[in-house]
Amino acid sequence: MGDTLGKNFRITTWGESHGGGVGVVIDGCPAGLPISAEEIQFELDRRKPGQSRITTQRKESDTAHLLSGIFEGLTLGTAISIMVKNEDARSNSYEELKDLYRPSHADYTYEASYGLRNWKGGGRASARETIGRVAAGAIAKKILSQHCNIETLAYVEQIHDIKAKIDRNTVDFESIENNMVRCPDQEVVPLMIKRIEEARKSGDSVGGIIGAVVRNTPPGFGDPVFDKLTADFAKALMSLPATRGVEFGLGFDSVALKGSEHNDPFIFKDQQVRTRTNFSGGIQGGISNGEDIHLRVAFKPTATINFEQDTITRSGKETKLKAKGRHDPCVLPRAVPMVEAMINLVLVDHFLRSLLKKNQSLSLRNNSD
Amino acid sequence: MGDTLGKNFRITTWGESHGGGVGVVIDGCPAGLPISAEEIQFELDRRKPGQSRITTQRKESDTAHLLSGIFEGLTLGTAISIMVKNEDARSNSYEELKDLYRPSHADYTYEASYGLRNWKGGGRASARETIGRVAAGAIAKKILSQHCNIETLAYVEQIHDIKAKIDRNTVDFESIENNMVRCPDQEVVPLMIKRIEEARKSGDSVGGIIGAVVRNTPPGFGDPVFDKLTADFAKALMSLPATRGVEFGLGFDSVALKGSEHNDPFIFKDQQVRTRTNFSGGIQGGISNGEDIHLRVAFKPTATINFEQDTITRSGKETKLKAKGRHDPCVLPRAVPMVEAMINLVLVDHFLRSLLKKNQSLSLRNNSD
Amino acid sequence: MGDTLGKNFRITTWGESHGGGVGVVIDGCPAGLPISAEEIQFELDRRKPGQSRITTQRKESDTAHLLSGIFEGLTLGTAISIMVKNEDARSNSYEELKDLYRPSHADYTYEASYGLRNWKGGGRASARETIGRVAAGAIAKKILSQHCNIETLAYVEQIHDIKAKIDRNTVDFESIENNMVRCPDQEVVPLMIKRIEEARKSGDSVGGIIGAVVRNTPPGFGDPVFDKLTADFAKALMSLPATRGVEFGLGFDSVALKGSEHNDPFIFKDQQVRTRTNFSGGIQGGISNGEDIHLRVAFKPTATINFEQDTITRSGKETKLKAKGRHDPCVLPRAVPMVEAMINLVLVDHFLRSLLKKNQSLSLRNNSD
Amino acid sequence: MGDTLGKNFRITTWGESHGGGVGVVIDGCPAGLPISAEEIQFELDRRKPGQSRITTQRKESDTAHLLSGIFEGLTLGTAISIMVKNEDARSNSYEELKDLYRPSHADYTYEASYGLRNWKGGGRASARETIGRVAAGAIAKKILSQHCNIETLAYVEQIHDIKAKIDRNTVDFESIENNMVRCPDQEVVPLMIKRIEEARKSGDSVGGIIGAVVRNTPPGFGDPVFDKLTADFAKALMSLPATRGVEFGLGFDSVALKGSEHNDPFIFKDQQVRTRTNFSGGIQGGISNGEDIHLRVAFKPTATINFEQDTITRSGKETKLKAKGRHDPCVLPRAVPMVEAMINLVLVDHFLRSLLKKNQSLSLRNNSD
Repeated sequence: MGDTLGKNFRITTWGESHGGGVGVVIDGCPAGLPISAEEIQFELDRRKPGQSRITTQRKESDTAHLLSGIFEGLTLGTAISIMVKNEDARSNSYEELKDLYRPSHADYTYEASYGLRNWKGGGRASARETIGRVAAGAIAKKILSQHCNIETLAYVEQIHDIKAKIDRNTVDFESIENNMVRCPDQEVVPLMIKRIEEARKSGDSVGGIIGAVVRNTPPGFGDPVFDKLTADFAKALMSLPATRGVEFGLGFDSVALKGSEHNDPFIFKDQQVRTRTNFSGGIQGGISNGEDIHLRVAFKPTATINFEQDTITRSGKETKLKAKGRHDPCVLPRAVPMVEAMINLVLVDHFLRSLLKKNQSLSLRNNSD
Repeated sequence: MGDTLGKNFRITTWGESHGGGVGVVIDGCPAGLPISAEEIQFELDRRKPGQSRITTQRKESDTAHLLSGIFEGLTLGTAISIMVKNEDARSNSYEELKDLYRPSHADYTYEASYGLRNWKGGGRASARETIGRVAAGAIAKKILSQHCNIETLAYVEQIHDIKAKIDRNTVDFESIENNMVRCPDQEVVPLMIKRIEEARKSGDSVGGIIGAVVRNTPPGFGDPVFDKLTADFAKALMSLPATRGVEFGLGFDSVALKGSEHNDPFIFKDQQVRTRTNFSGGIQGGISNGEDIHLRVAFKPTATINFEQDTITRSGKETKLKAKGRHDPCVLPRAVPMVEAMINLVLVDHFLRSLLKKNQSLSLRNNSD
Repeated sequence: MGDTLGKNFRITTWGESHGGGVGVVIDGCPAGLPISAEEIQFELDRRKPGQSRITTQRKESDTAHLLSGIFEGLTLGTAISIMVKNEDARSNSYEELKDLYRPSHADYTYEASYGLRNWKGGGRASARETIGRVAAGAIAKKILSQHCNIETLAYVEQIHDIKAKIDRNTVDFESIENNMVRCPDQEVVPLMIKRIEEARKSGDSVGGIIGAVVRNTPPGFGDPVFDKLTADFAKALMSLPATRGVEFGLGFDSVALKGSEHNDPFIFKDQQVRTRTNFSGGIQGGISNGEDIHLRVAFKPTATINFEQDTITRSGKETKLKAKGRHDPCVLPRAVPMVEAMINLVLVDHFLRSLLKKNQSLSLRNNSD
Repeated sequence: MGDTLGKNFRITTWGESHGGGVGVVIDGCPAGLPISAEEIQFELDRRKPGQSRITTQRKESDTAHLLSGIFEGLTLGTAISIMVKNEDARSNSYEELKDLYRPSHADYTYEASYGLRNWKGGGRASARETIGRVAAGAIAKKILSQHCNIETLAYVEQIHDIKAKIDRNTVDFESIENNMVRCPDQEVVPLMIKRIEEARKSGDSVGGIIGAVVRNTPPGFGDPVFDKLTADFAKALMSLPATRGVEFGLGFDSVALKGSEHNDPFIFKDQQVRTRTNFSGGIQGGISNGEDIHLRVAFKPTATINFEQDTITRSGKETKLKAKGRHDPCVLPRAVPMVEAMINLVLVDHFLRSLLKKNQSLSLRNNSD
C-alpha cells in the first residue's frame, strides 16, 4: 500500500531486484511534453551499477523501455509506463540467505511485515527499485526546467569523516559529474575515493552526506499544513534506501542560533522580494520563498559487508553470516541522481498544484488556452 | 490541498489563529473505541498557551467540543469532528502587520502562494493549527495503547546549546511532565528555564531539539517503498511549524561509523527476534523491527522576537518591524505533545495497515469476527 | 474511511442528524474567490426541511457558520470549514428505535458494519448529512460560473408514475424554482403535489426521477480511465441517500438503438466542433465534448413511512414497527439542490484538473501569473 | 490523473491498444495469497478478442506476464506488475483516422483534453485497456472466494431488444459460459447470436444490458458517506468503455412503487438477520445487508460501424468516414468478465476496509496473529 507517491504527478513503482524487472507508471504528466528515451537513459546511466570501480560490479545495462504514454516523442497525458529488465541477477548466490536474516537489512522486517519475502536479493528493499524513481525524475526534471528554469543539483558533501568544502552558490553539474564520487570539491575527491576503496578492500562499507541546492524555485510552492515543501521533501528523501536523516537550511545547526541571529530580513532587490540571508534554506512556513533551497541527507554505511556477522536463522537459531554478494561499499555516488530525482518529483507535484492556487490565475489560464 | 494526512486513519485540520476557531475531522477511526472528552482535553492542556511562565501568555482554555462521531462514549466509526474556539484573539494588535512581512514567518510565502493572507495572526501557519493534530493524536494514542501497548514519549533534549543527558531506556512520562520545559534530565532543567527566560526578557528566542522514544511497536509497521515508517514520520514531523530537520537511530552521526560498526547483529532472546545493538533506531528497510524507535527533531528559534528588524512592505518598500504580539520565546515545551501526536498519528495509520498485510491473518480475522 | 470526495477540490463532511451539528471542510478551493454567506445560504435554503407543505416539518434554520478559510469575503486557499447546528433534533422520539431495525433504512447495515449506531436519528445516513455537500456545492457553482459560465440545472422529471415533459434545451432556473416540487413542467406540477400529499396523508411515500442538464461545459473534462466524467458523476450521485440508478445521454434506452442510429455525427458550426445529435449526452469516452450534459437519477420511495411494518429487534425477535418520526413523503423536491451540488462538485474537480493537462498551457499559465 | 482505482486494494492500469502493451500494477494485495498464472489467464481468455465468431477477429494471445510481486506462487504483499504485449496491432489501418474524428468515439474528446492523441487505435479509450482490470480482478476474485466465499456472476440480460428471462437465484457460471453470448437463458441465446451476426454483416452494431448477482457478501461492506457500495460500484462500472447507465436492486423501476411496497421487512432466519424481499438489491444505506447484490449495466451499441458516416477533420472540414478496422459488433459477450472484474475489485477493497471497522475486532485480529 506504499508504492505510489505524489498527488498531481503520481508515480507507482514496481519490481524486485531478482524477478522480471523493475519499472514505474507515471500518472498525471501533462500532455505534449517532448521527452526522449535518451533523456531518461541519461539519468539511469548515472544511477546504474558498474559505472566505476567504487560501485558494485553487478552488470546491468538498465535500458529503459518506454511502453506507454509517449507517442511520436510527446507525452500523451495518460499513464506513462517505463520498464527495465533484470539482466545480471545471480539468484543462486542468495541461496544461503533463504533462511537467515542479514543484519541491518530488511530481510527480517519484510518477513515480520508480510510473513514471507523474495529472498533472491533484496526484493523491494533493493536500491534497484529506485530505477523507476530516477526514470520518472528525468521527466519531472524536464518539466521543471522547461517551465520554471529550475535546476536541482545534488552532490556528495561527506564520505565517512571526509568533509568537502562546497560553495552552494557556485557549485555546478560539471564539477559534480567530472569525478566518480560526485563531489564538487576536487581536493577531497581523491581522499574520498581512497576511503571507499579501502572500505571495499577490507570488506567494509562507509556512509556519508549528500547535499542539494535547488535554484530558481518560484515563491509559493508548498501546501499547508501537511504538504509543506519541507514535509514532502522529507518523506520523499527518507523513502530512499539507507537514509537516516534530513535537514533544511541550517537544519540541526539552527538550534545554536537565537531568533535574532537566525531570522532572514526581507529586502527588495531587482524588483523582487528577497532575503538578505538564507538561513531558512529557501523555505518558510513550508512554502518556497524564491531563495535557493538547501537540504542535506544522511546515508548510513551500506548494510552489506564482507565480514562474518552474528545473526540468527528464521527459526531463531544463532548462526554466522558472511555475505558474498556484489555490493556497493558506499552508496552515495549512485545515490546522487536518486536524491535529485526525489527532489524533482516533489517539485513537479507542487509546481502543478501551484497553478491551481489563485482564483485569478485560473481565469487567465482558462482564457489563454 | 494539503490539509489531510494519513491513509487509513485520516485527519483533516481547519482553522486560523484568528477566526471562528480551529478543528479536525478524523476519518477512519474504528468504531466502538471508548474515548472521553477528558482524554482529549488532557493532551490539549499540555499544548495550550499560558500553561507556564515560559510560554506565550495568550489566554485560551482550548476546550474541545466533540461535535460528531462519538456516541455514548464510543466512537461510531464515522467522521469525528472536534472543534476549539478562539477566545483571546487580539486581531487589532496585528493591524500593523497587514502590509509588511515578518522575517522568517510565513507572511510572505503565503501571499506568494495564494495572493492574499489572513493577516490577523499567523493564519494556518500559526501553531494554533496543531490543536486539531493533538486532539486527533489523543485518539490515536488510545488505540495504540489498547491494542499494542505502544508508549510514545517525546521530551526536550536540547534548548539552545544546553544539552540534556537522557537514558532512552528509562525515561518516563513523570520525569518529563514534572517540569515546565518537559526535559527529563532534572539537572539541566533550571538551566534551560533560565535560558528561555533570558531570551524572553531580551525579546529574543531560542530553539532546540526534541527527542522521542517509542516502545512496544510490533515488528512489521511500515510500507515499502514510499510509505516507509521513516518517511511517514519525517513528513508528519516536518509538517510541524518551526521544524528544520529529523533523524532516526544514529541519524547524521551514523555517517561516522563503518558498516561493521553500525550493523545491528540479530539475536534470539525471550523467544523473540531482537538486535544486540539498536543503532537502526527500531526501523530497518523502513519497517519497524520491534526494538525501540528513536528519533530526533530540530526546531529553529521562534521567528517572533521583540527586536527591531529590517523588512519590507507588500509594495516593496524597506521598513522596520518591531513585533509586539505575545509569543513563545521557545516553542519546545509546547511542541512536545505535538511531536507525540504526530508520531502516534503515523503509527495508528500503520497499525491499521499492518492488519491487512498477511492473507492468512485476514482469514483469522474474518472468522473471529 | 469514506467521508472525503474529490482530488483537487476535496470535501470532507461530518455530523449526524442528532448531535452537535453537521458540516464540511473544503480543501483545494482556489484563493481569492469572492464568496458570501448569502450565496451559501441560498443553496441551503433550497435544501432545508419545512420549506413547503410537501417536505418534512422538522424545523431547522440550517444557518451556515463560516468558521475558517474565508477572510474579508475572499477564500484564503486553505481549508474552508462550514458548520450548521442541529436545532430541532427530537431524540426522544427515536427511543423505540434503539433496539430494532427500520426496514430499508441503514439501521441494520450500520450496525453490521460498525457494531453500533447513533440510534437517535439516522446518524450519517440521514439526508441531513448532505448539508455539507450543498454548502460546498455553492462554492463549486461559483467557480464554475465565474470561469466557464457553466450552468447546472436539476429538476424533477417524474414523481411516482407521473412523468413531466421537459425540453432540456429551454428549461431554466425560474421554471424549476417557481413551484414546490421543482418540476419545470407546470402542467404536471399540481398532479405531482397531489400525489405527494396523498402519500403523506396515507402515511406512505413515493420516489421519482431527477434529471439534469449542464450547459457550457468545455470539451475535455474527464480523466481516463477510471475518473471518466460519467464514472465520477455516477459515484457522486449514487452517494446521495435513496438513489437507485443513474444514466447518461440516452442511458438504458440507448440499448434499443443500433450503432448507426446512436452515433452522433460531427459537424463544424460557429467555428466549433459540435455533434449533430447529442445521444451521448455530452460525454464521449468519459470526457466532455462540449455539448450539453444530460443525466438522470432514480430515487426510491422514502423508507420512512407511517405504516405498521414487520421487522426484528437487535436480538432477532420478530416485532412490529410504526414509525412516528417527521419525514419527507418524497425526497425529490429537496434532492434537486443536492443533485446540482454533486454535479458541480465533480465538475469543479475536473475543471481544476483540466488546467493541468496540456504542457503548453502550463507555460502560458505560468508566465501570465 | 485517473489511472488508479481503489483505496486499500489499488490498481493502476497503463497502455494503449497500439504500443508496447498494456498492464496493471496492483498495490495493497495481501501477502501469502496463492495465485497462479493460470488463474489470471483464465479470466483474460474470457475477455480476449477472437474467442468466437461474434467478437472482433483481432488476433491476440493476451498472455499475462507476471513481472513482480509474486514469488514461488505466493503474493509478496508488494506491488504486483502484470503485462500483456500487443501482438496484432495493425497501425497502418488507422492511418486515415489521423486527421479525423470517428463519431461517438473518444478521438475528439481526447484531443480536446490533451491536445493530441495516439491515433493508431483507440489509445487508452480502447477496450484493450481493460486487460489490466481483468487480470487484477482475477486476484480480487481469489481473495473474495477464499475469505468470504463470495461468488460474482455477470451475464448478458439483453441484446438490442431481445430480453432474457433470468432467475437470479439459480443462475450459475456453467449456464453463462456454455454459450458465446454469455447469456444464461438458453432459449434466447440463438436469437441473440443471430442479432449480433446480422449487425456484423450489415456493418452495424448493437448494445445491451449486463446483469450481475453477487452471492455471500457479508453484511457491512460499504463506507458512508461517499464510498457507499452503490457509489463505488457505479464509478467502477461506469468507468468501463461504452457504459451508459447503472442501477441497483429495482433501480429505475423502484420509482413506480410506494414505500409500503418497496420496503424490505426484516426477518430472522437460520440465526441470521435477513429481509423477506430483496428490492434493495442487497445494499441499504450504501452498505451490504447480506442479501444477494443485484445490479444492471447498460452498454450502448459499439461506436465502430462499417457505415459511411458524416464527420469532420481536425481542421474542421466536413468529410465522410467509412471505418474499416476489425471491431466487435457487440461488446457485451466480452464485457461480462470486465463487469465481474470491476465488481470484484470494488468488493475486495471494501472487504479489506471492513476488517478495520470495529475496534473490538482489531484486538482479536492483533492477538491471533
